[in-house]
Amino acid sequence: MSGPLEGYRIVDLTSMISGPVATQLLADQGADVIKVEPLTGDLVRYMGSGQDGRTGTFLSSNRNKRSLALDLKSDAGMKVLQRLIGSADVFVQNFRPGTAARMGLGEADVRAIRDDIIYVSISGFGESGLYSKKRVYDPLIQALSGLATIQADRETGRPKMIRTIIPDKLTAMTAAQATTAALLSRAKTGKGQHVKVSMLDAMISFLWPEGLVQLTFPGQEKQISRAQLAQDLVFETSDGYMTVGAVSDSEWQGLCAALGQEQWLEDERFKTPHKRVVNADARLKLTQETLQTRTTSEWLEVLDAHDVPCAPILDRAGLLGHPQVLANQAIEELEDVQIGSYRQPRPAARFSEVDYQPPRIAPRLGEQSEEILGELGYSDEEVSNLRNSGAIGVPAP
Amino acid sequence: MSGPLEGYRIVDLTSMISGPVATQLLADQGADVIKVEPLTGDLVRYMGSGQDGRTGTFLSSNRNKRSLALDLKSDAGMKVLQRLIGSADVFVQNFRPGTAARMGLGEADVRAIRDDIIYVSISGFGESGLYSKKRVYDPLIQALSGLATIQADRETGRPKMIRTIIPDKLTAMTAAQATTAALLSRAKTGKGQHVKVSMLDAMISFLWPEGLVQLTFPGQEKQISRAQLAQDLVFETSDGYMTVGAVSDSEWQGLCAALGQEQWLEDERFKTPHKRVVNADARLKLTQETLQTRTTSEWLEVLDAHDVPCAPILDRAGLLGHPQVLANQAIEELEDVQIGSYRQPRPAARFSEVDYQPPRIAPRLGEQSEEILGELGYSDEEVSNLRNSGAIGVPAP
Repeated sequence: MSGPLEGYRIVDLTSMISGPVATQLLADQGADVIKVEPLTGDLVRYMGSGQDGRTGTFLSSNRNKRSLALDLKSDAGMKVLQRLIGSADVFVQNFRPGTAARMGLGEADVRAIRDDIIYVSISGFGESGLYSKKRVYDPLIQALSGLATIQADRETGRPKMIRTIIPDKLTAMTAAQATTAALLSRAKTGKGQHVKVSMLDAMISFLWPEGLVQLTFPGQEKQISRAQLAQDLVFETSDGYMTVGAVSDSEWQGLCAALGQEQWLEDERFKTPHKRVVNADARLKLTQETLQTRTTSEWLEVLDAHDVPCAPILDRAGLLGHPQVLANQAIEELEDVQIGSYRQPRPAARFSEVDYQPPRIAPRLGEQSEEILGELGYSDEEVSNLRNSGAIGVPAP
Repeated sequence: MSGPLEGYRIVDLTSMISGPVATQLLADQGADVIKVEPLTGDLVRYMGSGQDGRTGTFLSSNRNKRSLALDLKSDAGMKVLQRLIGSADVFVQNFRPGTAARMGLGEADVRAIRDDIIYVSISGFGESGLYSKKRVYDPLIQALSGLATIQADRETGRPKMIRTIIPDKLTAMTAAQATTAALLSRAKTGKGQHVKVSMLDAMISFLWPEGLVQLTFPGQEKQISRAQLAQDLVFETSDGYMTVGAVSDSEWQGLCAALGQEQWLEDERFKTPHKRVVNADARLKLTQETLQTRTTSEWLEVLDAHDVPCAPILDRAGLLGHPQVLANQAIEELEDVQIGSYRQPRPAARFSEVDYQPPRIAPRLGEQSEEILGELGYSDEEVSNLRNSGAIGVPAP
């Protein structure tokens, strides 16, 4: 089996990140994802360096997909898309709310062609309300969802953004799961449905369990102290940075022994887990003073021997060679005739019944336009006419 | 329909966050999730303030589940679990690798009872390799995956942790999607399988599209500049903080007009999107100087009028009353006889075929022990014996 989603066809009108990362996850799991692009291509093809309209970000948001370049402003292009929809299980779009309907691709239009389709809409802020028509970028959702405040500078209180686009990609995960659930439901009931996910809702729901938990009990919004895990457990050693955490009594005993600081066990400030939270500043300062006297690898060895949770803080390059990353085969080295050598993360979920194959590289713009039209029953002559009229796009020879 | 996962039973042996948040998402979608807890309960019941072993974090990681408290060290308790497994579609555990097998709950043991079960293993670092037996906390994965380095202080280079447990919760999303995909596959093939997800793999795969994209092309690891979205687009106004982004030419023109700074359009440093990236520091400094002269709401109004992406930076309390959050009904106010008023985020994915019901509150420890045993065919007398012998736990009257 090529993956648990083998046999399902997804017509993917999305661009940028939130949609493409969602459908890539489904493509990695065996779905036949057809990326329908305008003749100019998904903008991500041109943001950053790369060859052939394939930047690093494009490669890791669109692998295992096929590209069909279509001029949807032409009748002929729209007819191709409609025929494609007739063959599909899922239709996904992340236009601003209202846009798909104006294009003739609203839920009713699509369902008229394929009654049992799963129609997926990904939006920034939701489908109605004051913000629904606003343009969205990831930082706007970091701002609105409370994430930027959670990360605020402790001393100045100034909010901070996270330097990776959590809302975009988390929305992708949410949409991928919901799409899979809707397919599972259809397998039982035979009915398709409309699945809606907004980036704002996805982030609020994701942050809540500890990031927004203070809002749980009305009237107690300010009383609940931040979670212990919120502490910045970054320590400088004599040659770099590492992290170490000791929550339970046994871990704390292990830490004191490993660091050769058994006298901390007698310190009244650190006698219980609760006291260690209350006196966290003093505890972390002492820990830091000790850790900076030796190298990261020396500390990791002795902390591991005492079963204390610890890890080096790796930069991007350090990640490549780390023994656990290698043991997991988490990063694959791949070859492509055009692109040459490139690396991709291996999909995180591993399925025992799947005979894992390395991914097919993300497509050039329109790379499978002719192949897909052939599958839909267009004759060579029809394909040639569509290409010559500019209704479909194909790569330059 | 109560949700797309209606009719599926999940036996949930997980504790803490990565497992419970995964199964909660499936419970929110209608699955019958039975949380099997030791007689002492999931530790999260006691981390933080709350009533009845139900902290804010517990409430938002375990809603819509039922609790069965079992002593798995007793033969009688283990027999109850085995009978329960016989009725289940999914078995999920997040013990350290090797532990489940030692308990007699490895994949082979569970599959011997129920041949077509989906067996899900969530680990910190993977199932083999040097780190596989190490204890894990969320910051360790932030350290190992490169996330702490991505967030490093720009001036000192010191790594920084994110103050919300991204790896734990992202792993939950990954596991929930993979579990759903395995159920979908089984609906077609009739076969169960083993699904494995590690926090480390989940984070590497999640970060990659732009956070680790620099690793894509061997030999170019250092050349690719960080993504534009990585800029910290936090601006101080006369009464708070806001964010605003202007990437395209039209957005930049809108920004200059909204801010009354049309002369920036003539500035050579800002003439193209590329030049605006190269001269980001100067551009953001000028933007900041202008924005601090008026209030957030004044700026939002004029920026919206020019269709420039913008948003206030909300703190947790600001989130509760924001009109878009209200329009989305993203946060529900609920009532419980024991707990009183409490709030929960509404699940982000909305399904048109689902008649949405507010969640059932997270259970007290063992709250449904007797009910579940009854469903499994135990007589009242057998239940009573199991309770009296301490093999099952029930709440205090």
